[in-house]
Amino acid sequence: MSDIQYQAFETRQKERGIDIEAVKRELKALKVETPSWGYGDSGTRFKVFKKVGVPRDPFEKLDDAAVVHKLTGLTPSVAIHIPWDKVDDYTQLSEYAASLGLRIGAVNPNLFQEDDYMLGSITNADENVRKKAVDHLLECVEIAKEVGSDIVSLWLADGTNYPGQADIRKRKHWMEEALAQTYQALESGMRLLIEYKFFEPAFYHTDLADWGMAYNTAVKLGPQAEVLVDTGHHAQGTNVEHIVAYLLDEERLGGFHFNSRKYADDDLIVGAINPYELFLIFYQILAALRDDEHPGTQQTARRIAYMIDQSHNIEPKIPAMIRSLLNVQTYYAKALLIQWDELEDAQAKQDVLRAEACVREAFEQDVTPLLHAVREEMNVPRDPMKAFYESGYLDKIQERGVGGASW
Amino acid sequence: MSDIQYQAFETRQKERGIDIEAVKRELKALKVETPSWGYGDSGTRFKVFKKVGVPRDPFEKLDDAAVVHKLTGLTPSVAIHIPWDKVDDYTQLSEYAASLGLRIGAVNPNLFQEDDYMLGSITNADENVRKKAVDHLLECVEIAKEVGSDIVSLWLADGTNYPGQADIRKRKHWMEEALAQTYQALESGMRLLIEYKFFEPAFYHTDLADWGMAYNTAVKLGPQAEVLVDTGHHAQGTNVEHIVAYLLDEERLGGFHFNSRKYADDDLIVGAINPYELFLIFYQILAALRDDEHPGTQQTARRIAYMIDQSHNIEPKIPAMIRSLLNVQTYYAKALLIQWDELEDAQAKQDVLRAEACVREAFEQDVTPLLHAVREEMNVPRDPMKAFYESGYLDKIQERGVGGASW
Amino acid sequence: MSDIQYQAFETRQKERGIDIEAVKRELKALKVETPSWGYGDSGTRFKVFKKVGVPRDPFEKLDDAAVVHKLTGLTPSVAIHIPWDKVDDYTQLSEYAASLGLRIGAVNPNLFQEDDYMLGSITNADENVRKKAVDHLLECVEIAKEVGSDIVSLWLADGTNYPGQADIRKRKHWMEEALAQTYQALESGMRLLIEYKFFEPAFYHTDLADWGMAYNTAVKLGPQAEVLVDTGHHAQGTNVEHIVAYLLDEERLGGFHFNSRKYADDDLIVGAINPYELFLIFYQILAALRDDEHPGTQQTARRIAYMIDQSHNIEPKIPAMIRSLLNVQTYYAKALLIQWDELEDAQAKQDVLRAEACVREAFEQDVTPLLHAVREEMNVPRDPMKAFYESGYLDKIQERGVGGASW
Amino acid sequence: MSDIQYQAFETRQKERGIDIEAVKRELKALKVETPSWGYGDSGTRFKVFKKVGVPRDPFEKLDDAAVVHKLTGLTPSVAIHIPWDKVDDYTQLSEYAASLGLRIGAVNPNLFQEDDYMLGSITNADENVRKKAVDHLLECVEIAKEVGSDIVSLWLADGTNYPGQADIRKRKHWMEEALAQTYQALESGMRLLIEYKFFEPAFYHTDLADWGMAYNTAVKLGPQAEVLVDTGHHAQGTNVEHIVAYLLDEERLGGFHFNSRKYADDDLIVGAINPYELFLIFYQILAALRDDEHPGTQQTARRIAYMIDQSHNIEPKIPAMIRSLLNVQTYYAKALLIQWDELEDAQAKQDVLRAEACVREAFEQDVTPLLHAVREEMNVPRDPMKAFYESGYLDKIQERGVGGASW
Repeated sequence: MSDIQYQAFETRQKERGIDIEAVKRELKALKVETPSWGYGDSGTRFKVFKKVGVPRDPFEKLDDAAVVHKLTGLTPSVAIHIPWDKVDDYTQLSEYAASLGLRIGAVNPNLFQEDDYMLGSITNADENVRKKAVDHLLECVEIAKEVGSDIVSLWLADGTNYPGQADIRKRKHWMEEALAQTYQALESGMRLLIEYKFFEPAFYHTDLADWGMAYNTAVKLGPQAEVLVDTGHHAQGTNVEHIVAYLLDEERLGGFHFNSRKYADDDLIVGAINPYELFLIFYQILAALRDDEHPGTQQTARRIAYMIDQSHNIEPKIPAMIRSLLNVQTYYAKALLIQWDELEDAQAKQDVLRAEACVREAFEQDVTPLLHAVREEMNVPRDPMKAFYESGYLDKIQERGVGGASW
Repeated sequence: MSDIQYQAFETRQKERGIDIEAVKRELKALKVETPSWGYGDSGTRFKVFKKVGVPRDPFEKLDDAAVVHKLTGLTPSVAIHIPWDKVDDYTQLSEYAASLGLRIGAVNPNLFQEDDYMLGSITNADENVRKKAVDHLLECVEIAKEVGSDIVSLWLADGTNYPGQADIRKRKHWMEEALAQTYQALESGMRLLIEYKFFEPAFYHTDLADWGMAYNTAVKLGPQAEVLVDTGHHAQGTNVEHIVAYLLDEERLGGFHFNSRKYADDDLIVGAINPYELFLIFYQILAALRDDEHPGTQQTARRIAYMIDQSHNIEPKIPAMIRSLLNVQTYYAKALLIQWDELEDAQAKQDVLRAEACVREAFEQDVTPLLHAVREEMNVPRDPMKAFYESGYLDKIQERGVGGASW
Repeated sequence: MSDIQYQAFETRQKERGIDIEAVKRELKALKVETPSWGYGDSGTRFKVFKKVGVPRDPFEKLDDAAVVHKLTGLTPSVAIHIPWDKVDDYTQLSEYAASLGLRIGAVNPNLFQEDDYMLGSITNADENVRKKAVDHLLECVEIAKEVGSDIVSLWLADGTNYPGQADIRKRKHWMEEALAQTYQALESGMRLLIEYKFFEPAFYHTDLADWGMAYNTAVKLGPQAEVLVDTGHHAQGTNVEHIVAYLLDEERLGGFHFNSRKYADDDLIVGAINPYELFLIFYQILAALRDDEHPGTQQTARRIAYMIDQSHNIEPKIPAMIRSLLNVQTYYAKALLIQWDELEDAQAKQDVLRAEACVREAFEQDVTPLLHAVREEMNVPRDPMKAFYESGYLDKIQERGVGGASW
Repeated sequence: MSDIQYQAFETRQKERGIDIEAVKRELKALKVETPSWGYGDSGTRFKVFKKVGVPRDPFEKLDDAAVVHKLTGLTPSVAIHIPWDKVDDYTQLSEYAASLGLRIGAVNPNLFQEDDYMLGSITNADENVRKKAVDHLLECVEIAKEVGSDIVSLWLADGTNYPGQADIRKRKHWMEEALAQTYQALESGMRLLIEYKFFEPAFYHTDLADWGMAYNTAVKLGPQAEVLVDTGHHAQGTNVEHIVAYLLDEERLGGFHFNSRKYADDDLIVGAINPYELFLIFYQILAALRDDEHPGTQQTARRIAYMIDQSHNIEPKIPAMIRSLLNVQTYYAKALLIQWDELEDAQAKQDVLRAEACVREAFEQDVTPLLHAVREEMNVPRDPMKAFYESGYLDKIQERGVGGASW
């Protein structure tokens, strides 16, 4: 791509009244956490296809994450999942991360892979199981402290498969009790991010089924509890960006688990199925960031934790992660090109077509020249994917063989 | 149906340990409000089929509602919709209702049929429109006082059709302001029931899109605001009975708009498409009513306003209403036959199949003999539908001709 | 937009190995039919908002369509709907169209707005109704001949609202008989395009519910019957482009009704909700056009009838139509920029990420400079929307007042 | 339950004009195949919970299936899955089955658990993989001959995860070629049942996505190919009983995989989530069986292969299977109680409410007394579930330990 591309881009954006330097600053500030489990094997209930070169332990996952960060400049932190990433010495783990230019991000408890949890963890009718589950949550809070992370990120897989199977409200009470205990263990500055999911692995009801339940739980717990939006965890037809705007307005949007899907929780690469939705989510976030009249909303938007949460069932893991990050960066960049004055004017005049066109126009901009320029300024390769394939890293990890980490 | 049916029913329920007299008491106490508009013509965007005999004014709607109540004993109140049921003298209207053995129930404002409301009513960017809309809400509160109703039931049709069309959070603020003004006008003892709908007539976003938004709005407004669940206003796959249980637990379930649907908001006869769902909703309500440990939940369950809200596009209106009521009564009766001791035991032991079977067993009971007996004790016909067709009322209303009330 | 934009575009596409002149030829050949009813008022079941300046008769609809064609160069034909566009003299109508540089396109029968059709038209249990409906179909075939159109486009609104309401298979037989009669009336060279819709206005079952039923019906009728894909008529999660590819492969894809939706049949502006889906549909069509090994598929792709079918409920009609056409043109242009050699290579090697990236890369191109150039070469305004607002046409049609055509 | 129950039932049905003896004959003739894999462990992508007592090999699966058949009298055949049920000597397997009073039913190829199949089996771009897959299909046809089964039942898990990943039409051609080869290998009297699934494990497109594609493939193959309807493999809102009726009318309905779901392919116990849907499916089948005017349809209905296909993730396996069978039997029994004369009269007169009521009335009958009587006449326990728990079989299989068959 020749320089004329950037010149043309710059000319166009100036004509549109966009402050390119401001846009670049925002792009350089974008950080997206990658999940340790995204580097391992994953699959469907029918089959986990095992790949050569998949990391065999948490340290090798960090190695891979470091490569991604080096190539993109976007991913300084790595989420971990306990017990998948259980180690004897978490100080060692975080020091290892630091040595790679990384830090440990959100700590994710696992309340769904013990036999005890078959019928629920913190909502199990057996109080011993509930206690065990709470102990695990508390353990994860401690691990977060040890690794210097300020986020505990909870996905509760609990639910039931059949009408009548359990007392829905009793389970709600148990859940609220368990999370209150967990919340008490948080240090100041730490956040508990509460994810919701409306089906799977439970198929009749899930104890935290939607944003409303996660939000209400967060409000009950206190200001350090916020909602985590996994883009794939919604019923078909749901307007996710509306939920994002709503939670921002209520100052309870804590973070995202990015991925995409066509039908259910497909955990595909973010932005791969409906890229416009990803762009519209960023549009709502940027609108909140600009909203000087609502500083609480603004502040909430500023500290959103962006995280990838995908299952690369058939894709090579590291390239899939790079592609995901490039998608996030691309649609974020496009949202940064919204001409806000024009948009606000059209909205004020309730000019439906003009307001819509204004948002779409930003989406239509090709941000490739911009991203190339930004990456150069960040000292990362213009084309991180190409750079990865040329780096020789794929060859190097062949020695790991088949049968690395999976879940 | 011969007496052996009731004997067999009684024998069976005694074996199951069911207190039939208690069940009968509950059935006699069941009240379901019918909507004035359910007696008029309705249709789809493609066509309203005009029927002969449809009521021409609010008084004739009450006439029809009275017939339904007389035949079923279930419907002492009638919801009205303003301006569809606008009259000069509301005292006259409520006196007329009283003369028929009825009372006026929920007052429903209409914020979607004025040209001014095309782009929103209380969320319109034009403050004059917002003011007009609030005035209408206040007018409806006043009408409620005049007709002696304690419920104002709000369905907000506001929303947008395109991404970018409007500022979602600004609209949220305007909505909250308008509802706060409305709430202030309520007298003690009155309730504002807030409905939600996740699409239609707005197709991109609706300002009150789901139970979470309605609930959060209600909490902000105060204790006299509650959520109204319209069974058809959910995304596919949503577990409606879970939402019901959740709202009961939070003591914010105000009422229902009953209907059924296969895909979107089809407004078909309640219980016609998935009768088990209706039964499961009643199961959650009855569980709440039994929950002595949570008197707030119990009390909330006790005062739920049950209302029909359907569009009888192709059905004869009064028979469609009777059928709807019989369905509600039938599935309520079945839920009353749940063997709670057995269920609670199975749930406590986490015996999935036994707990499920326990709930299903109640659903499988044929309650026809029970309902016949209850109706006799209530002095209404055993078979209200047959009685209606034999009553001659259909002939009588032919004189109304074609072209009665519609919307 | 300065010339550097086009230079940059040209440079970029040459680097990518795209033959820009070929792309331009394809863009100039793109034709999209607009529907006469898209210029009139429409709405939801709750309200039709009446606009000033809406055409009052079929001739005025043609006037508006001519303006759109003049500004975009894309819409030489106009679909009509009988009886909405019924005139005494169809020769006069088609001559009037010709005088405006237009021709009459698909003729659309209306089998859903007569009282007789409440419970079905060609599937009605009453044979008199069926006969009436068939007569209307035959009338439309005759009208098509009169106006010189080679397409009769059938949307069958028939269906039922309740389980048990009708005998599904009997209705199927009646439908097949009626369509066979209609098919017999076609002249050589005429096509019967069969639309499907899986819900609304019927809510339990629709007699032609999905592409499989439409396709099977077409196969039974004969080679002049093909399937019409309305992009909004699918269950959530359906892969529409897959259906398109499948029908192309079976040589039965007759045309499209373009629109978009978020949940149900929202009839919003095409490309407004999920533009990537529109692009992916064109990708499948272009792949078929290139498929020299399957000339039947190729030929089918070549004669696809592209048609808009939307309800501009809240938008000004003509601008909404222009926006729709620009969207179609934009995403078609993007699909034309797919680098097929690269894509086929990646697909042959089953390189998932590279193949996906290849398709997405085309989507990411900003085609604005290309479209500006093409429009200049076509002698239409670079910015048709701006040109429309500057044309004074909006002022001119004010005289039509409020209360024009609607349905 | 005392005898009065049956007397009351008999009285009631006689009043309704039902021929109870005919109903009993049909109930005694009902046969439902259970799948060998339904006795093993299964789970979600998140976890397979291992149960004690799960069969360790195909022979032990047959042992369990024999218990189920002995208790219910409903399941004389068992479907097998290759390679899960691969044995050295299939004659030995079928003899073992015979010794237990069983026979081997449908043979199910597995084209999704080899690493080679990650990107497709018979649709893989690699012809070696396609060949391997076809060989497996042919192997399964041979196994079917060996075990004396007349059904090969194909679920094709092939599909793609991303737009552009593969050439959809090329894959279609490969699929059609492979199935043509398989079809050629069938002996006269054998049937190839083609299942469809619209998502999972592929998440963007599945090569056989819906009934239309399965049907069209079957038609192309020839009269021994038919469609297999898995009740859980449909988009939300799909009217499955309509598809059933349609396929019956086209004489291509080969069989069912029964299960139920709330959102996606949850594989829950059939009839557990929406029992009315199961009943309505049987209503369509019984209507076809009665249709003397269409002997082809009648014959198709007569030879439908009813099969269970579920994942008992959290339930004890054998009781879950018994519950499934009782559900099928219950809703089949209810459908047998439809008063056809009354229904046909109401349908002929297009009396919507009466026709609907007629179908629902059958659903409302409590068939427990009938099923007790039929079971006695079949010499199986009145309450098969209770009989199972009392049989001591659960104790006996404890010795199998944990870690039996799973997939």
